[in-house]
Amino acid sequence: MRVTAEICVIPLGEGVSVSRYIAACGPILEAAGLNPQLHAYGTNVEGEWDAVFAAFKECHQTIHDLGAPRVFTTIKVGSRTDREQTNADKIASIRGDSDVR
Amino acid sequence: MRVTAEICVIPLGEGVSVSRYIAACGPILEAAGLNPQLHAYGTNVEGEWDAVFAAFKECHQTIHDLGAPRVFTTIKVGSRTDREQTNADKIASIRGDSDVR
Amino acid sequence: MRVTAEICVIPLGEGVSVSRYIAACGPILEAAGLNPQLHAYGTNVEGEWDAVFAAFKECHQTIHDLGAPRVFTTIKVGSRTDREQTNADKIASIRGDSDVR
Amino acid sequence: MRVTAEICVIPLGEGVSVSRYIAACGPILEAAGLNPQLHAYGTNVEGEWDAVFAAFKECHQTIHDLGAPRVFTTIKVGSRTDREQTNADKIASIRGDSDVR
Repeated sequence: MRVTAEICVIPLGEGVSVSRYIAACGPILEAAGLNPQLHAYGTNVEGEWDAVFAAFKECHQTIHDLGAPRVFTTIKVGSRTDREQTNADKIASIRGDSDVR
Repeated sequence: MRVTAEICVIPLGEGVSVSRYIAACGPILEAAGLNPQLHAYGTNVEGEWDAVFAAFKECHQTIHDLGAPRVFTTIKVGSRTDREQTNADKIASIRGDSDVR
Repeated sequence: MRVTAEICVIPLGEGVSVSRYIAACGPILEAAGLNPQLHAYGTNVEGEWDAVFAAFKECHQTIHDLGAPRVFTTIKVGSRTDREQTNADKIASIRGDSDVR
Repeated sequence: MRVTAEICVIPLGEGVSVSRYIAACGPILEAAGLNPQLHAYGTNVEGEWDAVFAAFKECHQTIHDLGAPRVFTTIKVGSRTDREQTNADKIASIRGDSDVR
């Protein structure tokens, strides 16, 4: 099952500066071949369900390994059976509908 | 890695009544031994990361199998290394802090 | 516009124990007449959009007032124009569809 | 209270193609001066709490006005009292921490 997904990890109990933890996820998602797109409220990826969630587990675990005693992760995941659609396709589709307004 | 988590599945392209699809997830989460707690915006579970996400994949896939061409799932997942905490513990902790106010 | 909604507030930079902060939200949501239902991953409410989000703002602000320098809140909100539906109706609908399986 | 936020709107009961609805939100967020950044799983904005949520209400309502009988919206919102931080600052901070690895 091919999916697009968004992950947002939050370390708790480690102060207000969380970028060091989040920065550790990028290389994991990249190495998994998930075409990660960082934005201000998470990172969007795409790939097979199992590959995506194996990488998400590694991200979540890595935040603990870096010292956070508590980790809170939010995920959005979507799939469709009518046709293939990448994250770039989704953005292009919205932009296209904006243009014709 | 032991986690508590929340799943909320949304079928798209199948009309406004979505309860039939969501109802299919309960037995999956129950069979996986994840102690599912249904609420109005999702279902809370607890267990090992791999067991939780194997069941979440089955829920998401089942919505497609029931006929929805597009499925959108949101997930929250949390873990802590300082101590064990179940979903019931979390609620008891909040209620306890409310009582002493 | 009548809505059902879920709020989950997370204080950052204040240690791993967050229940004291979350406990402060219950009375706010109760006082606003939003019929709050606490669960392990948030609190579900229902009411008019403006009343719901005024209370959510007060919850979020209160976490800061209690000392958290950073607050992260996730919200789900839904509405429908075809018929009225409370949080209790949503749960009953899912349970009803489970029973007939 | 200055916040950064993410909104993701999902129309239900209107088929699988939802881009036409989502496209209607961009001009609303732009007109409100919230510096919207579209990505594949939502749109990030920044501004005062009241301005952000007034625009989010207008987005959600507009999806109904365009014909969707049911709308499901997910929101993330964050604020900090220790210092000002824009969405661009957040991304720069994560990228900076990645570079020094």
